[in-house]
Amino acid sequence: MAQENLSVVLHAKGDLRLEKCPVPEPGPTEVLLQMHSVGICGSDVHYWQHGRIGDFVLTKPMVLGHEASGRVVKVGSAVKHLKVGDRVAIEPGVPREMDEFFKSGRYNLSPTIFFCATPPDDGNLCRYYKHSANFCYKLPDNVTFEEGALIEPLSVGIHACRRAGVTLGSTVLICGAGPIGLVSLIVAKAMGASQVVVTDLSPERLKMAKELGADFQLTVKRGEEPQQLAKSVAELLGAQPHITIECTGAESSIQTAIYATRSGGVVVLVGLGSEMATVPLVNAAVREVDIRGVFRYCNTWPMAIAMLSSGKVNVKPLVTHRFPLEQAVQAFETTRQGVGIKVMLKCDRNDQNP
Amino acid sequence: MAQENLSVVLHAKGDLRLEKCPVPEPGPTEVLLQMHSVGICGSDVHYWQHGRIGDFVLTKPMVLGHEASGRVVKVGSAVKHLKVGDRVAIEPGVPREMDEFFKSGRYNLSPTIFFCATPPDDGNLCRYYKHSANFCYKLPDNVTFEEGALIEPLSVGIHACRRAGVTLGSTVLICGAGPIGLVSLIVAKAMGASQVVVTDLSPERLKMAKELGADFQLTVKRGEEPQQLAKSVAELLGAQPHITIECTGAESSIQTAIYATRSGGVVVLVGLGSEMATVPLVNAAVREVDIRGVFRYCNTWPMAIAMLSSGKVNVKPLVTHRFPLEQAVQAFETTRQGVGIKVMLKCDRNDQNP
Amino acid sequence: MAQENLSVVLHAKGDLRLEKCPVPEPGPTEVLLQMHSVGICGSDVHYWQHGRIGDFVLTKPMVLGHEASGRVVKVGSAVKHLKVGDRVAIEPGVPREMDEFFKSGRYNLSPTIFFCATPPDDGNLCRYYKHSANFCYKLPDNVTFEEGALIEPLSVGIHACRRAGVTLGSTVLICGAGPIGLVSLIVAKAMGASQVVVTDLSPERLKMAKELGADFQLTVKRGEEPQQLAKSVAELLGAQPHITIECTGAESSIQTAIYATRSGGVVVLVGLGSEMATVPLVNAAVREVDIRGVFRYCNTWPMAIAMLSSGKVNVKPLVTHRFPLEQAVQAFETTRQGVGIKVMLKCDRNDQNP
Amino acid sequence: MAQENLSVVLHAKGDLRLEKCPVPEPGPTEVLLQMHSVGICGSDVHYWQHGRIGDFVLTKPMVLGHEASGRVVKVGSAVKHLKVGDRVAIEPGVPREMDEFFKSGRYNLSPTIFFCATPPDDGNLCRYYKHSANFCYKLPDNVTFEEGALIEPLSVGIHACRRAGVTLGSTVLICGAGPIGLVSLIVAKAMGASQVVVTDLSPERLKMAKELGADFQLTVKRGEEPQQLAKSVAELLGAQPHITIECTGAESSIQTAIYATRSGGVVVLVGLGSEMATVPLVNAAVREVDIRGVFRYCNTWPMAIAMLSSGKVNVKPLVTHRFPLEQAVQAFETTRQGVGIKVMLKCDRNDQNP
Ligand SMILES: NC(=O)c1ccc[n+]([C@@H]2O[C@H](COP(=O)([O-])OP(=O)(O)OC[C@H]3O[C@@H](n4cnc5c(N)ncnc54)[C@H](O)[C@@H]3O)[C@@H](O)[C@H]2O)c1
Ligand SMILES: NC(=O)c1ccc[n+]([C@@H]2O[C@H](COP(=O)([O-])OP(=O)(O)OC[C@H]3O[C@@H](n4cnc5c(N)ncnc54)[C@H](O)[C@@H]3O)[C@@H](O)[C@H]2O)c1
Ligand SMILES: NC(=O)c1ccc[n+]([C@@H]2O[C@H](COP(=O)([O-])OP(=O)(O)OC[C@H]3O[C@@H](n4cnc5c(N)ncnc54)[C@H](O)[C@@H]3O)[C@@H](O)[C@H]2O)c1
Ligand SMILES: NC(=O)c1ccc[n+]([C@@H]2O[C@H](COP(=O)([O-])OP(=O)(O)OC[C@H]3O[C@@H](n4cnc5c(N)ncnc54)[C@H](O)[C@@H]3O)[C@@H](O)[C@H]2O)c1
Ligand SMILES: [Zn+2]
Ligand SMILES: [Zn+2]
Ligand SMILES: [Zn+2]
Ligand SMILES: [Zn+2]
Repeated sequence: MAQENLSVVLHAKGDLRLEKCPVPEPGPTEVLLQMHSVGICGSDVHYWQHGRIGDFVLTKPMVLGHEASGRVVKVGSAVKHLKVGDRVAIEPGVPREMDEFFKSGRYNLSPTIFFCATPPDDGNLCRYYKHSANFCYKLPDNVTFEEGALIEPLSVGIHACRRAGVTLGSTVLICGAGPIGLVSLIVAKAMGASQVVVTDLSPERLKMAKELGADFQLTVKRGEEPQQLAKSVAELLGAQPHITIECTGAESSIQTAIYATRSGGVVVLVGLGSEMATVPLVNAAVREVDIRGVFRYCNTWPMAIAMLSSGKVNVKPLVTHRFPLEQAVQAFETTRQGVGIKVMLKCDRNDQNP
Repeated sequence: MAQENLSVVLHAKGDLRLEKCPVPEPGPTEVLLQMHSVGICGSDVHYWQHGRIGDFVLTKPMVLGHEASGRVVKVGSAVKHLKVGDRVAIEPGVPREMDEFFKSGRYNLSPTIFFCATPPDDGNLCRYYKHSANFCYKLPDNVTFEEGALIEPLSVGIHACRRAGVTLGSTVLICGAGPIGLVSLIVAKAMGASQVVVTDLSPERLKMAKELGADFQLTVKRGEEPQQLAKSVAELLGAQPHITIECTGAESSIQTAIYATRSGGVVVLVGLGSEMATVPLVNAAVREVDIRGVFRYCNTWPMAIAMLSSGKVNVKPLVTHRFPLEQAVQAFETTRQGVGIKVMLKCDRNDQNP
Repeated sequence: MAQENLSVVLHAKGDLRLEKCPVPEPGPTEVLLQMHSVGICGSDVHYWQHGRIGDFVLTKPMVLGHEASGRVVKVGSAVKHLKVGDRVAIEPGVPREMDEFFKSGRYNLSPTIFFCATPPDDGNLCRYYKHSANFCYKLPDNVTFEEGALIEPLSVGIHACRRAGVTLGSTVLICGAGPIGLVSLIVAKAMGASQVVVTDLSPERLKMAKELGADFQLTVKRGEEPQQLAKSVAELLGAQPHITIECTGAESSIQTAIYATRSGGVVVLVGLGSEMATVPLVNAAVREVDIRGVFRYCNTWPMAIAMLSSGKVNVKPLVTHRFPLEQAVQAFETTRQGVGIKVMLKCDRNDQNP
Repeated sequence: MAQENLSVVLHAKGDLRLEKCPVPEPGPTEVLLQMHSVGICGSDVHYWQHGRIGDFVLTKPMVLGHEASGRVVKVGSAVKHLKVGDRVAIEPGVPREMDEFFKSGRYNLSPTIFFCATPPDDGNLCRYYKHSANFCYKLPDNVTFEEGALIEPLSVGIHACRRAGVTLGSTVLICGAGPIGLVSLIVAKAMGASQVVVTDLSPERLKMAKELGADFQLTVKRGEEPQQLAKSVAELLGAQPHITIECTGAESSIQTAIYATRSGGVVVLVGLGSEMATVPLVNAAVREVDIRGVFRYCNTWPMAIAMLSSGKVNVKPLVTHRFPLEQAVQAFETTRQGVGIKVMLKCDRNDQNP
């Protein structure tokens, strides 16, 4: 077993450090993983820049990272479904209590859930990391470590599309072409959406949306009227979309989402903006446009692996940058600048392949 | 067939008149009804006071009234399920086009639907009224005409509770103890809610809620903090309610509704307030509290009749005032002042019984 | 702590013994309970008479009993929500693995679940019993121990009605007026069913159904034609029922269930009969009458407690016989003979109250 | 307007004739269509060979054909959404009454529905045919007439997959690789199924399944044990399928379907076999494997057109034979022999293109 456990530790707002931590010892229901690929998420950067997200405040040093995959190097005594050498994707949320949410299959809503890199819980941007074996999922040979790591953001898209009820022939508006908007696009298409419109402020991001299968792209100009944008969407599609997946968090975009969606349809709120938002609620109510939130995901890893393995879903183009773990700060800086889509940190010195 | 067709006609904002209109002739798929009991709705009063509701603007004289029951006096040639003498309750919304909404069972969302007393469509506050036979439902002998008329507001409660998913053991917060809040209370209880909290500004209205089965009443003071109110609701129930049915339309009450509802639960918006509302959307989103609108109802009359006939639902206490049709203006004035709950107009000179 | 742990142990088919067993020691996540009331279930009697149910075969002595309530007398070190003295109802099924069924909220389908008195797992017909604290639910003061024990069969009724989609105005056919048919009746009514027809071979059992709120009773004669019976049901209700809950397991009754149910409706299979059944599947298929199984229940205790505490559900009349634990064999004999409805064993020598 | 209306008329069992019928006159809500492409369905052949299907008995001459598309040549006075020249696909089922099924969006269950080529209603295997305009759907330019005609069988697959709840990552077993099994395969894939196994007795039909995207094919030998087949399916997939879509109607295949499906999953019955079937109901019930029927479809044309137009669904390979209308008897004989998959009749003498 290796000795060194280089880790990306956030000590305080703005204070990101590469440190050597002890290699953890897995408990009876855990596995120890040698980390391979970990994606950087907007939330990692947000903790770095602001030291908090909403009510989650950094009060002591925390390892970052939660989009991850690795290889099993040690197995807890009670673990049956994994063995040393298995390549796994990590579901970062692990419920701690068997409360009503867990018992009814919505464990993502459990208020006491453990979640990688959400204070005070450590993430997995390091060389060695231990995790509940029940939330590590074996990867088939034809799914790469990076695809495994991308299951985390992909899961947000799966959960969003599932909550939206995307099905055969759905027409979908996706607001925002960041990583989350793009995975929602990929998933919507895989679930049978016939036409997807994607919006963004940035034409570059929309270019990527086009490459990933968007049928229409709509460049939003700051200050543009939500009702006008909604009209443009309907014109592109020939009718209002059944479903809108809001992935920006911007108030004006939420307004657009409501106006744009067909009566009887669904707006899913994935983007998280300011606490209070001013929105046309009466318009939504009298047209029975449901507004449904998305908080991370639950029960998505198995289906994500099935889709990646079947080749029907391709997330590889999302990775635009790679850095060895040692260059983590540079990698974070790249994400902070909004360059490219997904930056991957390669944690295994002996294998920096995808 | 009688000659006289005294009708309550709104000519313009503030200009309500009792007039004699021609007795209409039913088409092949229609029935002519001798009206018996018609309840006054907040929307009737609103048209009278303001000449409009949202985008629906009075541009020519319109007969008011849409909470109604009567007796069949003439039957169109193609009508099979009704005969002269049948006592019926009237569903005021009749889809005009076989569009996607109608075909998929959500005809209330059809943009071209006919709806009694929504401009420009005439209502049924008159002596004789013709209606699509398919939207007239025969009343069993043990259901009174007034109960038949009350199916209209009751249907709003049914649709709200159905969209909310009220089921066995649900705990429910109902904001507002007006007619709509009260029917929602009655329905929630009948669908298996274990505990219902009702809020209102008015202690009198809450007294009625208590009589109708509310487990807890909460008197709201103007300016009270939504988050504080949400806390009080949780304290009364011992936990946050699974479901909130918002029946006031007040912005602060919608805020309370979101804060109060349990993670994974549902807020149903029945109350219609100002076009834009400022609400804690992030709080709803990250707790996956769904926000669902209610626009009237569809497919509710048969189940309402079944419940009334079975005696499991009792709406009779809602009727607090009765006036003969001739005193319609006085009746409207009573509703306008917010006295009592439901005012009934009795349209049949020879039978003013409930 | 008491020393003696008198237990009802089934050693082999027909060999039921009252024995003194050691008092168990609760693990960190368990509680030790002093048992109070335990109902006898048809399955307990079946194991006694036949030594097996389907693939579940008694191969070593097993304590019987799974409809139970008791008082906490010892608390495992990790248990937070219970304390000594708490009165609790016991959910007898405890998932052992965090498999796909558990994670998605359908833990009753987990193939490795622990279940009281299903070989090889011991039940709780004894003085002292330890159980997973997460599956013990605190009873409010106004819910008796016997009501607590009856939550187990009641849960079957809840799960059946929930899977059936019983809602406001549903008309329901329940086949069989044994304990399971009767709890289904109680729950269907509480969930808003407008009319319920109950069938049985035994007029006595139907008398009990009537007392518990059945709107119609239909005495079935052996050999009667299923299609004819279906017709009788439709005549009683004035239309076919939306939902049928089959609680006999008899092939002819399953046939009746399918013929009787309205197009687009649901047949729920609760009764378990012979492995293969000959049924009119084409009739079900072309009328889209769904056939849904029920295997025990999941996530029912909290809602059951809420309903019992609210007084909206009354299961007390189901208890027709009581015996002290010492007279367990006599109690089993009573159930075997089909006398009355539910036999309760009183396990606490100092408190034999309901 | 053309004079001649050559039609394929079934006079009695075995008595199929090509006859000249009058050109019908469309009513106010109808359109007259010049037929272009009409597929032959197993049911057309069945009426020809047996004069009946179940309770539907041919008692007078009937035009066959219900998988059809054509061009509008005359428009009823009240029709707004179609004009002369429009190319349309025809939904053959048109509800006649506004009953509970229609009002709630399940009009396929309406007992009085008009349905092309189901006695006594005439089909559209002819030159000129009139139909309710509301059930004619305009085809985009990039969707051919034959694709339009294939929407009918495709709709069965859509309805089956929708009732099954096929979604992202579903694993699916499809029993039978006839036209219906094959469209179910196409739709399941388009709705996100990760892996699909298809069974058939005929290796040739399985070859077509493979070409259309089946991940595994399983050749069934007559007399093979259903439980053994179920095991083979699980071995191919690595686990039991979530969903089985039964498209043979064979009793042994229905048995396989139940045994094969994962606990908590769904068996959809599309195939229609003998009235009574002997099946392992207890196995289905205790594993909560739901059994859901499929009767044709409703609300599928718009989504089918969207999918065909988007190019995400390709049904063109299903057409293996084409005949001019004049050679209808030869075409029927081809279908009767089970050669190929779908035989198309070309009704327009001037345009026999796809
Ligand atoms: N609910 C959850 O569980 C969850 C999980 C992950 C991310 N998120 C949230 O999802 C959102 C998207 O995440 P991301 O990583 O893709 O972020 P990102 O910042 O990379 O992408 C957001 C995109 O939205 C675009 N945008 C901003 N304003 C817009 C507007 N008015 N109209 C159109 N486009 C606009 C931006 O140009 C950007 O490309 C964030 O708010 C994030 O906090 C939520
Ligand atoms: N969505 C629909 O289809 C539909 C149908 C009917 C009515 N409505 C709407 O439902 C609402 C209720 O209708 P109604 O007839 O009962 O009206 P109402 O005015 O009689 O009752 C509203 C009640 O809410 C109370 N209230 C006001 N502000 C409050 C607050 N902040 N907290 C608690 N209670 C407060 C008032 O005291 C009053 O008793 C109205 O907004 C109406 O427009 C909607
Ligand atoms: N699926 C599950 O999870 C589950 C749980 C508990 C019980 N069960 C099953 O439910 C069934 C009922 O349990 P119970 O404890 O009420 O049993 P029970 O034997 O006490 O009651 C069955 C009743 O059905 C009546 N009956 C028999 N044949 C009939 C017929 N053809 N028509 C009408 N009535 C008929 C009997 O007279 C009897 O009253 C049993 O099959 C049991 O195995 C299933
Ligand atoms: N429910 C509905 O609304 C609806 C609509 C259309 C068709 N159908 C029914 O669907 C079924 C399929 O229709 P189709 O047109 O594809 O018929 P088809 O006869 O062309 O195809 C059936 C296929 O099943 C195969 N098969 C037969 N027994 C089998 C077995 N034991 N195991 C595996 N495969 C077996 C046959 O070899 C054949 O290829 C028919 O029963 C038809 O009546 C139902
Ligand atoms: Zn993330
Ligand atoms: Zn009203
Ligand atoms: Zn039992
Ligand atoms: Zn067909």
